[in-house]
Amino acid sequence: MTDFPVAEYEARLARAQAAMAMAGIDALFLNTEAELNWFTGFRTAFWQSPTRRWYLVVPRDGLPTALVPRIGAALMRDGFVGDVLAFDAPAGGNEGLGELTALLRPHARIATPMGEEASLRMALAEFDALRAALGAEWVDASPLLKRLQMIKSPAEIAVLREICTIGSRAFARLPELVGAGQTLEGAFRAFRIALLEEGAEDVPYLVGGAGPNGYVDVISPASTRALVAGDVLMLDTGARLGGYFCDFDRNVAIGRASEAACRAHETLWRATEAGLAAARPGTRACDLFHAMAGVLGTGSDIGRLGHGLGLRLTEWPSLAPHDTTVLAPGMVLTLEPSVMVADGAMMVTEENILITDGAPELLTRRAERELPVI
Amino acid sequence: MTDFPVAEYEARLARAQAAMAMAGIDALFLNTEAELNWFTGFRTAFWQSPTRRWYLVVPRDGLPTALVPRIGAALMRDGFVGDVLAFDAPAGGNEGLGELTALLRPHARIATPMGEEASLRMALAEFDALRAALGAEWVDASPLLKRLQMIKSPAEIAVLREICTIGSRAFARLPELVGAGQTLEGAFRAFRIALLEEGAEDVPYLVGGAGPNGYVDVISPASTRALVAGDVLMLDTGARLGGYFCDFDRNVAIGRASEAACRAHETLWRATEAGLAAARPGTRACDLFHAMAGVLGTGSDIGRLGHGLGLRLTEWPSLAPHDTTVLAPGMVLTLEPSVMVADGAMMVTEENILITDGAPELLTRRAERELPVI
Repeated sequence: MTDFPVAEYEARLARAQAAMAMAGIDALFLNTEAELNWFTGFRTAFWQSPTRRWYLVVPRDGLPTALVPRIGAALMRDGFVGDVLAFDAPAGGNEGLGELTALLRPHARIATPMGEEASLRMALAEFDALRAALGAEWVDASPLLKRLQMIKSPAEIAVLREICTIGSRAFARLPELVGAGQTLEGAFRAFRIALLEEGAEDVPYLVGGAGPNGYVDVISPASTRALVAGDVLMLDTGARLGGYFCDFDRNVAIGRASEAACRAHETLWRATEAGLAAARPGTRACDLFHAMAGVLGTGSDIGRLGHGLGLRLTEWPSLAPHDTTVLAPGMVLTLEPSVMVADGAMMVTEENILITDGAPELLTRRAERELPVI
Repeated sequence: MTDFPVAEYEARLARAQAAMAMAGIDALFLNTEAELNWFTGFRTAFWQSPTRRWYLVVPRDGLPTALVPRIGAALMRDGFVGDVLAFDAPAGGNEGLGELTALLRPHARIATPMGEEASLRMALAEFDALRAALGAEWVDASPLLKRLQMIKSPAEIAVLREICTIGSRAFARLPELVGAGQTLEGAFRAFRIALLEEGAEDVPYLVGGAGPNGYVDVISPASTRALVAGDVLMLDTGARLGGYFCDFDRNVAIGRASEAACRAHETLWRATEAGLAAARPGTRACDLFHAMAGVLGTGSDIGRLGHGLGLRLTEWPSLAPHDTTVLAPGMVLTLEPSVMVADGAMMVTEENILITDGAPELLTRRAERELPVI
């Protein structure tokens, strides 16, 4: 069974097909996890295995057709989809390619994700062969998918609200979970377990760091370094529920905090306040960036001050100078200001918000203004 | 710091460059998680974010050059790599593309993964532009990477042995973790936490199912269905340590088991015994398949009876009729027989083994011959 009622997927398909008609696109060709889930509700951890390929063709009219390995045909048939064609796999290459070519042959103008945020989850040699076999014009589906998926439905918002609440409950337990003498590995493990205990389905993303004035980067895995008094510990998680991600972090000081770290946390808090004040429909992503950057002064190496989220840990838009996406109700964003503190050490905070007709709704329990000392 | 000593990466690079010389390849172009980790030790959960692109160019002589977003430059510099070039990202598209084109321009014959198990983790439009800008000949790096990565080093084997041991300890706790009345969601959650408690770093893969004579498929996520007496519950996990996966499952009957389920479990056990007896250096993957298939009779929809594993949940080779890969010491494989039990219900068992000079080493604690009833 799919995660949402059929009406959710019917509405998505109707919006997609209307956009396809407007753009003169005959078919969408999709092969990645988030796209297949968004259109059909097909959800499995089996995407972890790179061996098998999963294809979906969305025509301008009628139901999508899925072309999948036999191992996944039963689960795909539970999805919102028309025909499900199954092929033997693995079989040494080109599995399903003949069927895929036949499925796409009637279409003169085919869109597939080729740009921002996109990747190709099939063998490049097979995709090249597919293009060569078809006389079709290929266009980038990324802008169309961005417009469709950036605005979340009420059902999606409910799930996102829930996973953010779960994350907030887990972060509230940090004082009992971490402390001096514990390794970062131990802190990561305790927090990951807390997320699951609070109701997360899985925790695909957990990064963090610790140091007296922050951390060197925000993407490192756990290490065996032990926490010591005076450290600022940051944990940043993308926990998931029903396939949807939260993405936020919290900072805590172990025992005591440097003045620089306290000041940085306060600056980050104020930058987020500026973001919350600016996050209104009609505001552009770049405007939201500048509202926050104005509080921060010079930036960090992160390259943006937030982003969309949903079925992916990070999605369009980027809160960055280049992104002129206009905010609209239903968008779910992170506000993620970062600041250099000292000697290559940085600090970052993150909240998740929903753009509404008025002030944004905070999906995460707001971080404290003062850096908590535990 | 990298997960292994520098000598490990030096040896990998030397083997890769020798293979490149043999194949007349001037440079390898890589952009996916497992490839970058294998060559440089760069490991981060940040691959979850599709926004940023990570490029590695391995020349036939000398150290690899990494070209990465600024957010990851510090972590990449800790890796086994020569130059680390950083670019601003996100920036609206084509981030790093000019630098990448310049890096690859001196190379006449460039290999990138295009075949079995491969995907392209960059914007297709940007890859097309890269190919158009260069006069290079592009060849498939998949066979070369397969030969290099299929044989695990002693250091890799030690990590794989450890994560399999962790998984075995967690599975040994199943009788205390699951039971009648519990939902599948609850069972998944309890087992995921047990894996972390036993020492897993994360659990990217957990699937399973339950029913009186097995389960409809082997890739479904948890559901709210409650376990009842007579169910066969299967949990299959890819837990990870230092980036390396175990991949195995266990079946338990809740309260009591049908005769058909007990018989199927015994058949699967005997098929695995046949696999263990056949898994010797010089045996081909297809021979190993047939040794197990001979015990099973008719097959299931899974399409193979095991596969390699390592930095990916599933890797080459496939234990399947088409795969003539010759087994060699250092290969780590799953033996994964499956059988239809009744009415569309199937059962599957899985063990992880190391190919040695003699009999294979079981990395997982062998499943019991009789279906355990709990």
